[in-house]
Amino acid sequence: MTGPPSALAESAFLRAARGLRGPHVPVWFMRQAGRSLPEYRAMRTGVAMLEACSRPELIVEITMQPVRRLGVDAAILFSDIVLPLKAMGVDLDIVPGVGPVIATPIEDLAGVARIPDFTAESVGFVSEAVRGLTAELKGTPLIGFAGAPYTLASYLIEGGPSKDHAKTKALMYGAPDVWDGLMQRLAATAAGFLTAQVRAGASAVQLFDSWAGGLSPADYRDYVLPYTTRVFAEVAPLEVPRIHFGVATGELLADMAAAGVEVMGVDWRVPLDRAVQRIRPAQAVQGNLDPAVLFAPWDVVQQKAVDVIAAGKRARSHIFNLGHGVLPATDPDVLARLVDFIHSHEVAAAE
Amino acid sequence: MTGPPSALAESAFLRAARGLRGPHVPVWFMRQAGRSLPEYRAMRTGVAMLEACSRPELIVEITMQPVRRLGVDAAILFSDIVLPLKAMGVDLDIVPGVGPVIATPIEDLAGVARIPDFTAESVGFVSEAVRGLTAELKGTPLIGFAGAPYTLASYLIEGGPSKDHAKTKALMYGAPDVWDGLMQRLAATAAGFLTAQVRAGASAVQLFDSWAGGLSPADYRDYVLPYTTRVFAEVAPLEVPRIHFGVATGELLADMAAAGVEVMGVDWRVPLDRAVQRIRPAQAVQGNLDPAVLFAPWDVVQQKAVDVIAAGKRARSHIFNLGHGVLPATDPDVLARLVDFIHSHEVAAAE
Repeated sequence: MTGPPSALAESAFLRAARGLRGPHVPVWFMRQAGRSLPEYRAMRTGVAMLEACSRPELIVEITMQPVRRLGVDAAILFSDIVLPLKAMGVDLDIVPGVGPVIATPIEDLAGVARIPDFTAESVGFVSEAVRGLTAELKGTPLIGFAGAPYTLASYLIEGGPSKDHAKTKALMYGAPDVWDGLMQRLAATAAGFLTAQVRAGASAVQLFDSWAGGLSPADYRDYVLPYTTRVFAEVAPLEVPRIHFGVATGELLADMAAAGVEVMGVDWRVPLDRAVQRIRPAQAVQGNLDPAVLFAPWDVVQQKAVDVIAAGKRARSHIFNLGHGVLPATDPDVLARLVDFIHSHEVAAAE
Repeated sequence: MTGPPSALAESAFLRAARGLRGPHVPVWFMRQAGRSLPEYRAMRTGVAMLEACSRPELIVEITMQPVRRLGVDAAILFSDIVLPLKAMGVDLDIVPGVGPVIATPIEDLAGVARIPDFTAESVGFVSEAVRGLTAELKGTPLIGFAGAPYTLASYLIEGGPSKDHAKTKALMYGAPDVWDGLMQRLAATAAGFLTAQVRAGASAVQLFDSWAGGLSPADYRDYVLPYTTRVFAEVAPLEVPRIHFGVATGELLADMAAAGVEVMGVDWRVPLDRAVQRIRPAQAVQGNLDPAVLFAPWDVVQQKAVDVIAAGKRARSHIFNLGHGVLPATDPDVLARLVDFIHSHEVAAAE
């Protein structure tokens, strides 16, 4: 494959994702396209989540909104973790105030066999949106997005969101053949969804394992890591930076970093300098301001951002982000001010 | 004060809590008195949570149920984190399916001033229950129970449960005088509630900081640790073992251990041998089987319990527990079998 156009390749985000430091720390925010932006709320009025993720013109517009308003260094595809499952034909919906709800939860091998195979055709509307986005974004990289096998499995088994994932773990411990069949299928789904996005023009990928942080390290290694490793191995030939993230994953960082990634996302609980000790020297870190800090007075926001940047200097390179998604009540002006501060700070600090 | 009767003092639980190893690892379960037991569900039919925590005969009966059925090495007072606030006169209720709901959330110094002082008289019904319990329990220790200042503050500020504690943190960062006033009052509350329980006969205390795990280590040290330290310092003269616990606190263990405790509770995310490296050599550990493991086939439960015991051997001493509360759907027969296994295992392993 040909390399990306050089403005893109030399963008602060992609340089940092490749382990190179630049004139400033790049910054983007998980859930930057979302309810904190009034233009997003306007766009979603009367439009269900999965519909918004399925219409190319809405995907493009919503993905672009934070790039225009905040000046972030990367866009991330507006989508949802369960979107590829829906596109493949799994009967599910995203219920406002609840989350993904699955019509027929998976209990056995027959249930696994009922999940259709992922095909690039089923997400043709996403590829179309990505092509539109990369044309519009020009030198700003687009990050592709997928949910990790464990997180997808938890929704399919529980039938929806769960606090304790007891059914998921019961199946994981008690029915190894069902577990393997399901996780292999979901690994293929995540890899296929990411591949489709990169082929259409995405410059990096992030795999979200939202619920992996509920596993002990031993369980993560035994029941999850092999499948996550498969996802990252399948996208490796595409030669784009691979980012891995989940919340409450402090104890899992070493194992998650071993899945084959260039960038480890770190939640706000783990100071970045500690995270660096757990991952590999060649890896970059991404994170990790507590999203709730954005409700503090500006001098606190600024000081805590400085602390994050200082800790991030211990890593090979650093992509600034929150330690989890933007909270819906966040003031977008604070996000914009933070982006400006990150961009200006690092230049000033390059003494 | 006189020491406890010797059968009690030499109980496996109190020996382990003092750092002494015995013939077997003692075991109890967080939320052992609760919805997993049919006799508990029967007792609670038509009885609201705060009513159940306020009637001495119900407190005694519910606290005793798991001791009788499971053969655990310690009882823990059946109560709720917000019970002392209710007893002091704060207008709150526990709404089924929601959690604690506060009528008038705290926003400012006037709100703090409206919180009545804790008095031992206000929880006289708890002291009465503790006296009844210690008479009935004889050689089985009773653990006293209180919610930590941060967790209580989060309910009072948010008005109820919260996923992100954004209001709590906004006040913590933005209004230091309100924060200090509130946390001092809640430290006095927790210390007073624990003191009342010990004076009535409890042999140990556990401070639950349910939500501390949502704080970065720096924030924990700046905004929470001074108040938790005050709680433990105020109960220190009572000379009972002090246990400290919160979920998702892996990054906070060193700081939480520094609050002045004999036993650190560890959630299931942190292998006990790692936890030992973060706490102090003189401290015991408590934990930490994933509560969801109890839904696995028995051979998995047994193997994972063995793993916990093996990791716990790296500590000065070990109290077996789950890494969080018993899940309501747990089969009590599995809990009972696990207690028997823990008791028999360690004797067999004493080669």
